[in-house]
Order: sequence, then C-alpha cells, then structure tokens
Amino acid sequence: MRIDRTRLEQSIEELGRIGETPRGGLTRLALSDEDKRGRDWMVARMGEAGLRVTIDQMGNIFGERPGAPGFPPVMMGSHVDSVPTGGKYDGQLGVLCGLEAIRSLNDHRIETRHPVMLVVFTNEEGARFQPAMIASGVMAGKIALEDAYNARDKDGVRLVDELERIGYLGAEPCVPRPFRAYLELHIEQGPRLEEEGLSVGVVEGIVAISWSRLTIHGVQDHAGPTPMRIRHDALVAAAEVVTAVRRIARELAGDLVTTVGSLTVAPNIVNAIPGRVTLSIDMRDPRDETLDRALPRLDRAVREACKREGVPYELEHYWRVPYTPFDREVVAAVERAVQASGARYRRVLSGAGHDAQYMAAIGPAGMVFVPSRGGRSHCEEEFTPLDDIEHGANTLLLAALDLAGRA
Amino acid sequence: MRIDRTRLEQSIEELGRIGETPRGGLTRLALSDEDKRGRDWMVARMGEAGLRVTIDQMGNIFGERPGAPGFPPVMMGSHVDSVPTGGKYDGQLGVLCGLEAIRSLNDHRIETRHPVMLVVFTNEEGARFQPAMIASGVMAGKIALEDAYNARDKDGVRLVDELERIGYLGAEPCVPRPFRAYLELHIEQGPRLEEEGLSVGVVEGIVAISWSRLTIHGVQDHAGPTPMRIRHDALVAAAEVVTAVRRIARELAGDLVTTVGSLTVAPNIVNAIPGRVTLSIDMRDPRDETLDRALPRLDRAVREACKREGVPYELEHYWRVPYTPFDREVVAAVERAVQASGARYRRVLSGAGHDAQYMAAIGPAGMVFVPSRGGRSHCEEEFTPLDDIEHGANTLLLAALDLAGRA
Repeated sequence: MRIDRTRLEQSIEELGRIGETPRGGLTRLALSDEDKRGRDWMVARMGEAGLRVTIDQMGNIFGERPGAPGFPPVMMGSHVDSVPTGGKYDGQLGVLCGLEAIRSLNDHRIETRHPVMLVVFTNEEGARFQPAMIASGVMAGKIALEDAYNARDKDGVRLVDELERIGYLGAEPCVPRPFRAYLELHIEQGPRLEEEGLSVGVVEGIVAISWSRLTIHGVQDHAGPTPMRIRHDALVAAAEVVTAVRRIARELAGDLVTTVGSLTVAPNIVNAIPGRVTLSIDMRDPRDETLDRALPRLDRAVREACKREGVPYELEHYWRVPYTPFDREVVAAVERAVQASGARYRRVLSGAGHDAQYMAAIGPAGMVFVPSRGGRSHCEEEFTPLDDIEHGANTLLLAALDLAGRA
Repeated sequence: MRIDRTRLEQSIEELGRIGETPRGGLTRLALSDEDKRGRDWMVARMGEAGLRVTIDQMGNIFGERPGAPGFPPVMMGSHVDSVPTGGKYDGQLGVLCGLEAIRSLNDHRIETRHPVMLVVFTNEEGARFQPAMIASGVMAGKIALEDAYNARDKDGVRLVDELERIGYLGAEPCVPRPFRAYLELHIEQGPRLEEEGLSVGVVEGIVAISWSRLTIHGVQDHAGPTPMRIRHDALVAAAEVVTAVRRIARELAGDLVTTVGSLTVAPNIVNAIPGRVTLSIDMRDPRDETLDRALPRLDRAVREACKREGVPYELEHYWRVPYTPFDREVVAAVERAVQASGARYRRVLSGAGHDAQYMAAIGPAGMVFVPSRGGRSHCEEEFTPLDDIEHGANTLLLAALDLAGRA
C-alpha cells in the first residue's frame, strides 16, 4: 500500500499558502490569524476524511478514525505554527503526511483494530509563547494549564485570550490520554540524512535541552559625553557572554551545540549606552552529563563578564529536558515500515525538541525524519525533496497500520 | 537682572508632565502625540509672552520678540523631543530657559536692538527618525528637505506624514536665515562640571562624531540539529565587533569614546541561529584625526570578525561631523555673562551633538552647559540641581542681552 503522492503534494502547496512570505517561506505564529486559517483548513480536511474532530482546552485538534471499541488510538501528529520567516515543511509536513496516511487507509477501505487519530498541537515552536511544545507539555502533565494560559507574547497578550479570540479554546480536558502509539513525521533540521544520501531517519530519541535567560543591568547613559572610565555597558558584557557560549561548545566538543538566538537591547538607540540587555542561551547534547558540565561553565562566564563591566545580572536556567529515548517497540515498527517501503534510511537522534518528546512521557512514541536540504530549517530556504517526503509518508502509513493492526 | 527662579521651576514641572514615565523620566519621541502636546504647550507659552509664532517646513517653531527694524535676531533654542525613557532636562531645559529669559526681558520692559527669538527644533535626538538634529541640518543646508521628509521610523512611518498628522507641517521655508547669534543652553551629559563643583560650562565647541551601521548576514537555522561545524551565526560575529569597538577606545586612549548603542537580531528567537544582525557604531573625539585613525581599525575588526564566522556584511559610515568650534565672539559673550552672574564655571567641550552644531555652520553660535548629576543623561535618572539651572538661565539671559544690545 502506498500514499497518493500527487494528493500529498497538493496539500503541501495549499496549506503552505496560508501565511506564505514573499520569499516562499512561512510566517504562521501560534494563535495568530494565519494560524487560525491553517487550523480551519486542517479541520475542514479532517471532516472531509470522515474524522470525528474535537478540540481540547489547549486548542489541540484531534481527528479520530474509528477502530474496534475499547482500543486506544494510534496517534499521528505535529503542528501548524511556524517561527517568523520560517519554512513550509517544519510541522506542517507531519500533519499533512498524517492526513495523507488516513486518506490512504480510506482509499483502501482498511479497517483497523486501534483507532487512528490525527493531532495538531498548539504552539509547538515557542516562537510566540514560551516555552515551546507548551500544549503537549500540558497534556503530559509537565506544564500546569494555568501557567500555559498565562504565557504572554512579547506584546503582553495572553495565550488563553488568543485561543478564545481565534475560536480554538475547546472544552475537552487537556490531560494524559491512553494511546497505542504516537508517531510524528518531521524534517530532520540537520544535514546528516542529506549528507549520507538517505530518505528517512528512524529516530531513536531526542537530545537533552537546556534553556537559560540572562538579563544584564547596565547604566543607560549618553554615548557622547560619558567617558569610557565611568561606563557600565550592558551590551559589552552581553557580547562577552555570546562569545563564551560559542567557546563552551568548542571546549566540550563532541555533539554539544550552543546558541544565543535572542538578544534584545534597551533603549536600543545609536547614541545611548545600553542600559539593559536580555538574551537567551540554548544548549543541547545527546548526553545529560554534557549539559551538567556546560551549565557551570556558562554560570562562570556570565559572572566574569558582568564583573569585568561592573554590571549586575540575573541568570535563570528555566527549562531543561533530559535525553528522551523513544519506545523500542515503536522504533522497531518504524524501522520495519521503512524497510517495507524500500527507502534508504538510518537510525538517528533528534537535535530538536518535538511534541513527541512530551508524548513519550505518557505513552509509546516514535518519530520519522525526512531530510532537510543543507540541514537548514527555521528559515525560508527550508526544503525537502518530494521523493523523500513520499518515502517518509509511506513509512508513517505502514508504521501506523502495523501498530494499529487490521481489524 | 535675574530670571525668575520660581517661574522657571514651575515651567520645568509643567512641561515635564507631558510624556512623563512612571519612574519620573520622559518618553516624548519626535512627532509622537506626546511631542505634539509638548509643542502645543510651548506655542501657548510663546503666545502669552507676546511672541510672533511661525512654523517652518520641518516643524521647527520660532517665536520672535521684536527688535529694531532690519536687525537679525539673537536666537535661543533647543528641542522638546526625548529618547525613550529619557530624562526631563535634555532639550527641554534649553527651550524653557530661553522662554524664561524672554519673560524676564518682558518683566523689565527691556527693548533690544536685535530681535530675540526662541526656537524649538524638530527631532533633535534621532531616536525616532535618523539622523539626529535632522531639522537644524535641513536649515543649515546639510540635509536635503526631501531626504528628511522620507526618513522613516522603525515602523516605516515617514517623518513628513507625522509632521502633517500632528499639525506641525509649516509653510515657512526651512533654509539658512541670518542671525546675530544662536545660543543653546543644555545639560552637560557628562560628569565633569559636577566633579569639579561648577555650575556652568562655557562651551568652546563640539567633538567630532562618526556614526556607522553594520549589517551582518548569517545563515538562519535551527539551534538544535545544526552542528557547530556548519554554522554561520550573525550574532557571534556581531559580538566580536562589540568587543572590538570597546577595545578601539582603549587602544587609542585619550578622549575617544566608542559605543554600540543599537543591536537588533533577526529572527530573535531562542531556538534559531541568528540570520541577521544590524548594529550601530558611534565614535567621538575632540580631534578629527583620532576618528581618522579609529575608523580603519573598525573596518579591520569587522572584516576579521565576519571572515572568521564566514558571514558577508555591509558596513556603512553614514554620518560624520567634524569638530565644530563655536564663534569666538559668542563664546566670549557667554563667558562675560557667566562672570556677571557670579556662577563658578569653566570652559568645556561638548561630547554630544546639538542643533548648535548645525547652526554654527551658518552663523555665530555658542552654548551654555549646566551639570548632569553623575554625568548621566538619556535616562530617567537625569537630573540637574535648580541652583545650577538658575545660574545657567541667568548666563543665557545676560549673554543674549549682551549680543542683542539694548535699543
């Protein structure tokens, strides 16, 4: 059994037009008007595919294809929100390949023992509301519903108010639910599959991730008449931290990646010495122990940089997820599926967090990766060849059918 | 003759309430609603003082107290716009001391040979529209009116449209006009007068200033799955430049001050490698030659930092003003006035640009400084003791009268 490549291609094009940027990327921030339109499009397609659609308290969308009574579903899902000027494959590909798998089951009138369910998670990216994967986090009981509701975007708008505004504040409780398996197809977002000429990655787990937030309090002053000797420049200290964050990755070598992705200066004008800088530090490694070694180095680098400039600061390590191994049985089912589909593949780790990470905390989960051209993602140039997408979608279909069982 | 300290204090309080921040500072961005209200307040006070008010094409406000026919005016002025979360003394003090000087002439029914004129310049700070001092720049013929009109704020709003919106797009040509002298009272914005226990600075000139703009083009990518070896991080290169800009001041020592005041990251989210960073470089020194030595060092530092990270960039040195000496006769008149007022003073240089700088290009100009507590300005903590303000205002009054001559 195979998915319908032409139909899948068409879905990717259609959904990709909602929030499309002039340069062919995607800006579809969580719970924005574009996100609402993307969701509406998905809900309409789910209805056409005969799924029973429900919305939960976090705006997660579920579309169920029935199985035999009393069996928990095989879930397939991802997200439709994007980062600003992101690409058309991240997230979107997961829900569209899930949709295509269900459409293919319909085409072949296949009945399954376990229901098959499509899920669209809210605010996976964390670009608008932090933390990322907030809705699967609530479902897994790792984030309090109230905290998630009170998350604010940079304009101070609350997540719950935006959920309500766009009509996706559902009634269904957002709590752990039984499932046979959760499967997520996603772009790799790294260069490995492409470099090795492979179409599919069978994901064994997700690396450990640490997010920190640093605020440096300098003394805002005029850039002209203030002699260098009396300056306390928040940005000069911040620049040292950025350099140190890069250095930590070099010193600990191996697979550790470290990034300062966000840095904001106040008042941010040419002729004022920066009075306040806020920046983020993202560190990831397959081994939890590496992060345990990297964080004290970060602490020390921040302390020293701020001491040199004579500026107070607050450093908060506010989010940490340990290495997440996926379910052995699910990983094995994905591997059988990719072998049956005939695609070239390898086992890989995910360097990015995904909703599958939280789902793995409450049930058997696994992922299917497809290549990212040049390893690039979270940018308009994000691209995956259709041949690889087809292989990935077939893998997803066959793995879901394997786990759901024929009725 | 003396100014009325109580009346001056009251004006400072009244105008200071327009755009006041919760912490007692001021946010009155050029051509904002707050700026309009500040302007309206000034125009009303000018009318009450019997001045003939006109507005020019750049929204500069002129209030003339007549003199004998055919004599060019002695102008006193400054600005009422502020930086974001700035203070209540920068700019505002200059126009209010000028107003108070005119009120004092009225009190004493003094007639002058040269008219005495109060000026309020548009967008001195350059916080909203760049470059700074754009309106005196147009008046001096250094900036084309059309370029000034097309200056856009960060939301893309044009200066001319905002002038029109707030009702200050005047008909009078903004061109060089004859004047007997231009006098500007301003806070020092540096620590020197306070450190030496002085009330007034007789300003001999304004340091040379250079503004540069750097845009670094990194490769935006996901912070997780992108190995360190393939990264081209715009912020890592920018951080090196910030460090280098600080180092250049240390290496060339002396009076050179160097600042990166503005730095903006795109897309500026925790989990994306920065794809683009734009930053400003402000360098100032009393000697033009020092800037001539500093700029090539900046060029080299940028080239090396960007080469190391493998990122293309554009570096533009877009604004340069040479050292501006003030008119010897005007400086002498200010010095005679401060001596007559009995204040402790010294001669100083201005480290900040002022409208007086452009005015000096088209006529005799000079400035009066009053101290800044802790040398601080462009911040909510900006403060000048009233005793010093009174000394400064008296100096301004006596210098203006000296230059205008009794009728």
